[in-house]
Amino acid sequence: MKHRGILIVVSGFSGAGKGTLMKKLVQQYDDYALSISATTRSPRPDEQDGREYFFMDKQAFEEKIANGGLVEYACYCDHYYGTPRDYVESQLTAGKDVILEIEIQGALQIRKDYPTALLLFVVPPDAQELKRRLTGRGTETDAVIRQRLKRAVEEAKGIEEYDYIVVNDDLDTCVEELHEIITAAHNTPFRNEEFIENIKAELEVLAKGEN
Amino acid sequence: MKHRGILIVVSGFSGAGKGTLMKKLVQQYDDYALSISATTRSPRPDEQDGREYFFMDKQAFEEKIANGGLVEYACYCDHYYGTPRDYVESQLTAGKDVILEIEIQGALQIRKDYPTALLLFVVPPDAQELKRRLTGRGTETDAVIRQRLKRAVEEAKGIEEYDYIVVNDDLDTCVEELHEIITAAHNTPFRNEEFIENIKAELEVLAKGEN
Repeated sequence: MKHRGILIVVSGFSGAGKGTLMKKLVQQYDDYALSISATTRSPRPDEQDGREYFFMDKQAFEEKIANGGLVEYACYCDHYYGTPRDYVESQLTAGKDVILEIEIQGALQIRKDYPTALLLFVVPPDAQELKRRLTGRGTETDAVIRQRLKRAVEEAKGIEEYDYIVVNDDLDTCVEELHEIITAAHNTPFRNEEFIENIKAELEVLAKGEN
Repeated sequence: MKHRGILIVVSGFSGAGKGTLMKKLVQQYDDYALSISATTRSPRPDEQDGREYFFMDKQAFEEKIANGGLVEYACYCDHYYGTPRDYVESQLTAGKDVILEIEIQGALQIRKDYPTALLLFVVPPDAQELKRRLTGRGTETDAVIRQRLKRAVEEAKGIEEYDYIVVNDDLDTCVEELHEIITAAHNTPFRNEEFIENIKAELEVLAKGEN
């Protein structure tokens, strides 16, 4: 029953471990493609165009916005970030589930455009653990950590908009769980309209006894 | 995150293999309890009260209806059939996912009462295969098979009301798939309201820096 891929949005608190999770998921299973964002910010020394980001200038980015070439976009710190539609579409058509990591505003933009997108929210086992992880990096002041926790409070307000929450306690267990949830999502009726229409039509023919 | 169990409704075409599937699922995993129906029809020689059905007279059944003691019920061929609420509730409270096999009318009754119930619809790989299975029993006339196909046409109209469809092609694969879908369902936000409320409240306390 698996044909076209599903667009999968992964959000979650900063510090919940989304990046590691997604990398591991893509390594472990062939079913997925990680989306690559476009940005107008300059590449850092270790970054490569088409690997970390598609780098482009502001004019090119705004043209993409104007002609619907982005699945979602946002502006942070004077730079645009967005998801190019052509890459997403080509992967979905090839039957890959495309994973993209964005925040709630982008997630809700995507749901409008792709009603069958799957929205996942990654959470730590509890708030104390999130604080430990934020602190654990060891590079931040108390003020910065508190700022991040405040942001987490804001982010938490959107959890109910998501289809599933995934608790990132143990990495391997969490990757398994993500894979299970995505596999299950392929079985919803609204992601299988063609299959359902076909079986309905076939049943009607058989019930009429024309064969 | 798994606390209270989920009420799982399994429907599907007659001949799709629901009974076998559910028996296998319950054998294979400890997480599930099969619901036992109550009925006013007489027990057959090989049936035992409390195993195949809870057998009761019409008056006792109607009392149960009157005092809300049934999760759903229906009347077929002059006999009542229904799902006793006390058994369902005790299993859910014990953390078991309770599986019950009923048709769409009952499924929709349940959804009203248990908004977090999970509705699954079992389908054969295609309509021809359903016909083969109905014919394969070898005991039915063409007219009866046609009658069943007509009923399948009616049943198919409700597929979109279900949360997931499960294709029963290979039995073992299908049991795995069912288990995956049910496991995933435990991760929806509306089935984890308490967890979400707790983490939100904890985050607010931490962000205020009162610890």
